[in-house]
Amino acid sequence: MVKLIALYEQPQDKEAFDKHYFETHTPITKEIPGLRDMKVTRIVGSPTGENKYYLLCEMFYDDHESLQTAMKTDEGKASGKDVMKFAGDIVTLMIGEEVHE
Amino acid sequence: MVKLIALYEQPQDKEAFDKHYFETHTPITKEIPGLRDMKVTRIVGSPTGENKYYLLCEMFYDDHESLQTAMKTDEGKASGKDVMKFAGDIVTLMIGEEVHE
Repeated sequence: MVKLIALYEQPQDKEAFDKHYFETHTPITKEIPGLRDMKVTRIVGSPTGENKYYLLCEMFYDDHESLQTAMKTDEGKASGKDVMKFAGDIVTLMIGEEVHE
Repeated sequence: MVKLIALYEQPQDKEAFDKHYFETHTPITKEIPGLRDMKVTRIVGSPTGENKYYLLCEMFYDDHESLQTAMKTDEGKASGKDVMKFAGDIVTLMIGEEVHE
């Protein structure tokens, strides 16, 4: 599987972030054609005590082609536009391939 | 589930990193008592073209207590010591809780 990963740093207003993330952004994202699964992880700490990050979201697709196609759909563009609007300054986006050992 | 996440930035020597990571670090880590699953994702790009990161590893535990206990075992300490030795300057460790919507 291929996944699009969104890693969010701590937002200034956590309550406003959560409200927008779970009530607006997640529903938009879930409509993206080709999305197989979506896993959200709340970052709650670290072994070293530092805690720069707030949330990690993994969005699973069959392969790179499906992901590229998905990002060009209306739903994909809407999700991308939304994330840049509410979290453009705190989000890092990555494309990953699962390693099977 | 609770997970320990290790996010690695691009190493200077990718070949040396891969060799140590898959031949030494992963086998040590897999021995940690209480570890339920381990998923490795190779970061291959990003939608914006930037690519600061190289690898993401997710290590799954039943709960926070299991993770804390695991990190105090000989195997947990050996894995932690090893990661700091070969990638201390490029790794970010996070503790996360999966969100069920």
